[in-house]
Amino acid sequence: MQDNRHLTIAELGKLVEAIFRKAGLNAVQAGALARVIVAGERDACKSHGIYRIEGALRTLKAGKVRPDAEPVVSVQEASAIVKVDAKGGFANPAFEQGLPLLAERAQTYGLAALVINDCTHFSALWPEAEALTQHGLAGLVMCPSYATVAPTGGNKPLLGTNPFAFAWPRQGRPPYVFDFATSVAARGEIELYRRAGKPLPEGWAIDAEGQPTTDPTAALAGAMLPFGGHKGSAIGTMIELLAGIMIGDLTSPEALAVLGTTSLAPSHGELIIALSPEKFAAGRPGDPFARAEQLFEAIVGQGARLPSQRRFQARAKSEQEGIALTGAEIDSLDRLLALGLDAVN
Amino acid sequence: MQDNRHLTIAELGKLVEAIFRKAGLNAVQAGALARVIVAGERDACKSHGIYRIEGALRTLKAGKVRPDAEPVVSVQEASAIVKVDAKGGFANPAFEQGLPLLAERAQTYGLAALVINDCTHFSALWPEAEALTQHGLAGLVMCPSYATVAPTGGNKPLLGTNPFAFAWPRQGRPPYVFDFATSVAARGEIELYRRAGKPLPEGWAIDAEGQPTTDPTAALAGAMLPFGGHKGSAIGTMIELLAGIMIGDLTSPEALAVLGTTSLAPSHGELIIALSPEKFAAGRPGDPFARAEQLFEAIVGQGARLPSQRRFQARAKSEQEGIALTGAEIDSLDRLLALGLDAVN
Repeated sequence: MQDNRHLTIAELGKLVEAIFRKAGLNAVQAGALARVIVAGERDACKSHGIYRIEGALRTLKAGKVRPDAEPVVSVQEASAIVKVDAKGGFANPAFEQGLPLLAERAQTYGLAALVINDCTHFSALWPEAEALTQHGLAGLVMCPSYATVAPTGGNKPLLGTNPFAFAWPRQGRPPYVFDFATSVAARGEIELYRRAGKPLPEGWAIDAEGQPTTDPTAALAGAMLPFGGHKGSAIGTMIELLAGIMIGDLTSPEALAVLGTTSLAPSHGELIIALSPEKFAAGRPGDPFARAEQLFEAIVGQGARLPSQRRFQARAKSEQEGIALTGAEIDSLDRLLALGLDAVN
Repeated sequence: MQDNRHLTIAELGKLVEAIFRKAGLNAVQAGALARVIVAGERDACKSHGIYRIEGALRTLKAGKVRPDAEPVVSVQEASAIVKVDAKGGFANPAFEQGLPLLAERAQTYGLAALVINDCTHFSALWPEAEALTQHGLAGLVMCPSYATVAPTGGNKPLLGTNPFAFAWPRQGRPPYVFDFATSVAARGEIELYRRAGKPLPEGWAIDAEGQPTTDPTAALAGAMLPFGGHKGSAIGTMIELLAGIMIGDLTSPEALAVLGTTSLAPSHGELIIALSPEKFAAGRPGDPFARAEQLFEAIVGQGARLPSQRRFQARAKSEQEGIALTGAEIDSLDRLLALGLDAVN
């Protein structure tokens, strides 16, 4: 095994991109995937870092995502809806290609939406929420996933873990950003309890009969529960409606039916709504960005944390010192680079 | 005391409007207020029905809302932001006057926003969310309130109970609609526990020292907690940013500072985002309204409830039989009509 060592963000980016190229992705797909995976690793968000490479490769090997997809951006005149057809590729390059036009329309009309259709989705939403803020925009990002969550009062998987992200731009520092599953826990967390042989906290899941359970295996065969009871269930349902049905793409039960497994990345759509604080605040007293800082200071001033602060601390460290990888991680990356799709089942 | 009896929706509407006119509101303000209060009573949503009349009158008597305000609607060419200056009056007439233009812009651009500034707010958000659906639109509605909720990890009131509502249109039946506080409980619920001498459920509130409490009096002197832990806290913060700061209007701590009490209706702004499912789904397979019905059937089919169903059942009953009022309630309405502002402190 190699020694632990630090790679610069650029070095890791090149390596991850080369792995995806070797596996057969075109430059557009490989570049965007490498950027989002390295962003996760850089921010010490290990669950969305290099750990995700194998899942993307397995999805590719199973023929569930198109390696050569070139996203197509379209928008009608005098419309605030920008559409990107991902052409069966990953969501990330589709987002990157739609973003400039989304920003332009949001700055023109005050708000605008980016719809991504026919994409495979496997990454966190915060990189996209953050990208909006680099254009001075606030925004909401949401998408379905697979049916693994029972609506409150129900007893079967129907909703997805449907992530919901929001970001607000801050000058000279990382944005205010949150990104969370609308289930109590992510499915991966339940899997970690199962592997550790530990019972789940109460209120996370129900078994296949719809009864509350703290047994991780029973939970995986049953359903997860929404966060915050009926309120989280309502938000999860809203995401199915807006980011599935409204945009003419798959809901979580449909995505699961198409794929037939939760072990590969699902195919569906995504919705991003971008808002221009400058346009909204025009003609009103006060600078919205300065006023937001007062709110953040009041939150931090009473000992509460802003979301994502741990990520931003890790990011600052990675930017200075590089990204710390273990010898086993470097071995694994080298193996993926050498073997391509043969490295995964 | 008079006998219990039923009033038709139109009769109660006339009576409530006359009460507000007698108290000095102009026709625009009185009509809109009567409509929203009667909608609450009609739907057996007593906490937002005729019970609210006195609060509105007290706010008026205290000089905190302008009785003769005429809302002013404005919009720039090629903008998806419609603004209504409520001119210090209530939010409801401002919404009514901005809605047609909001609907037009949403249908033109695919999505649009309605900003209400300088309004006094005292009603639920679901009547506005429902009104969007009458134009075939889906939408989000949100506003701050007063600082009564501590952010997760904090120990002092800062956020408001910041309601969040969403609606989706359904053909030939009431819409899918939810409307909830982003705190665990509404402030009025804690007051009800206090009057009943009952302890609060765990997790609702902290005392003035920031410690968890189940004592309603200590909770009212301390702070309420967000629903769903850090996730609800993040959504409450998002509402301060979008529906307070971004639109150039007051945040919950600012609204409390201006008013100095939580016993009158607060003054701030409101944000409504309207989306056209027709525009979003154009060119994609499937009818979004028919597909949404499949999702609702799947929810109901596993024994879960759609939000607002109890309200819609009460509404159907009120439409058939009229609204049931107790003799005491009718006495109280007659007294308000006779005395106007002299009926309240």
